[in-house]
Amino acid sequence: MGLVVQKYGGSSVADAQGIKRVAKRVVEAKKNGHQVVVVVSAMGDTTDELIDLAGEVSPVPSGREMDMLLTAGERISMALLAMAIKALGHEAQSFTGSQAGVITDSVHNKARIIDVTPGRIRSSVDDGNIAIVAGFQGVSQDKKDITTLGRGGSDTTAVALAAALDAEVCEIYTDVDGVFTADPRVVSKARKIDWISFEDMLELASSGSKVLLHRCVEYARRYNIPIHVRSSFSGLKGTWVSSEPPQAQSAQREGQGEMEQAIISGVAHDTSEAKVTVVGVPDKPGEAAKIFRALADAELNLDMVVQNVSAASTGLTDISFTLPKDEGRSAINALEKRRPDIGFDSLRYDDQIAKISLVGAGMKTNPGVTAHFFEALSNAGVNIELISTSEIRISVVTREDDVNPAVRAVHTAFGLDSESDEAVVYGGTGR
Amino acid sequence: MGLVVQKYGGSSVADAQGIKRVAKRVVEAKKNGHQVVVVVSAMGDTTDELIDLAGEVSPVPSGREMDMLLTAGERISMALLAMAIKALGHEAQSFTGSQAGVITDSVHNKARIIDVTPGRIRSSVDDGNIAIVAGFQGVSQDKKDITTLGRGGSDTTAVALAAALDAEVCEIYTDVDGVFTADPRVVSKARKIDWISFEDMLELASSGSKVLLHRCVEYARRYNIPIHVRSSFSGLKGTWVSSEPPQAQSAQREGQGEMEQAIISGVAHDTSEAKVTVVGVPDKPGEAAKIFRALADAELNLDMVVQNVSAASTGLTDISFTLPKDEGRSAINALEKRRPDIGFDSLRYDDQIAKISLVGAGMKTNPGVTAHFFEALSNAGVNIELISTSEIRISVVTREDDVNPAVRAVHTAFGLDSESDEAVVYGGTGR
Repeated sequence: MGLVVQKYGGSSVADAQGIKRVAKRVVEAKKNGHQVVVVVSAMGDTTDELIDLAGEVSPVPSGREMDMLLTAGERISMALLAMAIKALGHEAQSFTGSQAGVITDSVHNKARIIDVTPGRIRSSVDDGNIAIVAGFQGVSQDKKDITTLGRGGSDTTAVALAAALDAEVCEIYTDVDGVFTADPRVVSKARKIDWISFEDMLELASSGSKVLLHRCVEYARRYNIPIHVRSSFSGLKGTWVSSEPPQAQSAQREGQGEMEQAIISGVAHDTSEAKVTVVGVPDKPGEAAKIFRALADAELNLDMVVQNVSAASTGLTDISFTLPKDEGRSAINALEKRRPDIGFDSLRYDDQIAKISLVGAGMKTNPGVTAHFFEALSNAGVNIELISTSEIRISVVTREDDVNPAVRAVHTAFGLDSESDEAVVYGGTGR
Repeated sequence: MGLVVQKYGGSSVADAQGIKRVAKRVVEAKKNGHQVVVVVSAMGDTTDELIDLAGEVSPVPSGREMDMLLTAGERISMALLAMAIKALGHEAQSFTGSQAGVITDSVHNKARIIDVTPGRIRSSVDDGNIAIVAGFQGVSQDKKDITTLGRGGSDTTAVALAAALDAEVCEIYTDVDGVFTADPRVVSKARKIDWISFEDMLELASSGSKVLLHRCVEYARRYNIPIHVRSSFSGLKGTWVSSEPPQAQSAQREGQGEMEQAIISGVAHDTSEAKVTVVGVPDKPGEAAKIFRALADAELNLDMVVQNVSAASTGLTDISFTLPKDEGRSAINALEKRRPDIGFDSLRYDDQIAKISLVGAGMKTNPGVTAHFFEALSNAGVNIELISTSEIRISVVTREDDVNPAVRAVHTAFGLDSESDEAVVYGGTGR
């Protein structure tokens, strides 16, 4: 039996009862013969409360001090979890990110992990302890200052430790049963995915699925650490995210059809973005570059970028892109400021949009997938405003009001509904 | 202008308003040209809340994890204070005990400081920053585990840092104006002491004065660091605790009389102890040793120990001691268990007592002081149950009900009342 890294989020350790429940689950893994390293987030709303306090003493709290402040959150949850485990008669020791050897760059509030040197964690588990590690935090390589990893930081801590400790698996415990073929709140027939490749999971994460963040999946793929996403409230198997399907599922999968068929993983949606259209851009070399340089200088994170052919009669084209709604104003300002230089007609801003994405391996080489996707939207009366595709994803932008019927229609069309007999295989003989 | 260490307790930083007020005061010291190092405690009730949480997850929380948990408290207050200072336009950086180089032994919950290596603090202030340091915490020398210093820990951190940084003064900010000649809640005419020697302050601290703890004063005396105890709510001068009176006061003091007169510092009282009397102990060598070995094995901290001559007729004697009330039961148990070996008649336990102490230099060589003390008690109708003296202190045990009139009577008798013309000098010509 090897080493297992388990990660529990803030909702799993929101109060003393939650901490005790997590402690029992951790002890089970230990009893099963594993070495166990646990990564915890701060309890429930602790982080938000600390942010509020900071707002009361300073309008613009410094990044270094904000990190010092927020890291108190995991310190509390990890010490309490260690106590709860010891109360069950097992040895446990808690460690800060710094003690666990999580070395980062110096970018406060959103530091990147540079290295993980888990010597103390290794010693602790080799001595028979369950090691509890604070998620979300590290120490900067140059200044030895405390840093935090930003959004999804605890998941990333867990995967990074799993990689450094050569763990068998990184288990991410959350408040849902795993990764679903669509958001279960929208699609009641959404099905839990048993296995998904790193690549498909990356696309789902970029397309609005919130179970795992892109960053953590990317890290796991780079070091080939299998992730098991599962519920901390049930004993059910969750979703495995890895490079190859686990043995049993692999055999089953092979029976489903040819290897070159498209395998649809799921339908993701995202209503957090806005669409900006730059209207009447001269269709000549260098124009797009000016636009995206202006946006890059404003440090904006663009998602979809779409340009269609220009109407030959005018020599003008339109360029659209999407980005997080709260960066919309900055984008408009950045473009208006450079308007004389860029030379467009006007800007259109629209934050009543939704992005719907179909993710699955092999779709590029199965043209039927795209057609089937668009037909499903059309049959549901949903109009498509933008289209963008990758090797394993098709995304469209629609009206925000259409998002729920659109996701349901696509989910059904691709045989993802849980009570149907349709398979997740598309483009071949089917089952 | 040199370096100043300022320490603020939990009541001074209980909320955002308090933190902002402290920030202003810190900045004032910086503006006056000092290098400033600030030691802070956890906000208000944070520590108690964390202890409650620990109790919810474990009946007997481990010491190591308790320390990890509790140190979250100062982490929050120090980061917020640094933010508040920066919001006033000054540079500040916060540091944990570990980062500040507070090296301790491994006794969790009541670690002793072994060494202070304040390299990072020195660099920070040399770079123009105000350094904020977490009080009460350190890191163990051997295991590199986080430790806490126990009661009065933050004051000790401040004094230890002041010593290591060769500070001009260690300012202890609290919610009273300084050290008083008696507890102002009992003696309305109690007077703030302008200066008191380390030795007298040590005796006051051991005798029930709660403003400074014994441990912190002991540390300051060893390294000869002047302490200035003052209110964080007013701008008043407080009490200086040092080896020699400050220049101005020294000159004034010299005018008061001969150097060999007794200088009474104040009257302290303590109602937190119980008295145990071992009745009918054979008056022969080795008996007392057996009693105190039994108590030492039970790790009990005794305060006063008194034995009177035995009655010649019986060959038996009585031995009394005082100790904290909450250790009373353990003392009784420890003695009962060894009763066959020790061979006493009976045990008497009494927790309705008070200890009243008169502290001041030169009393031993001024026999009039003791007589005057006892006369004052007698005139107030207060009966004396035990007596114990040192070079600079006389303590008596009385009924707990008598404590307030007893303290007031002694305070007046020694001319300590603030509106009287009597001087604090006793045993000489007076003023």
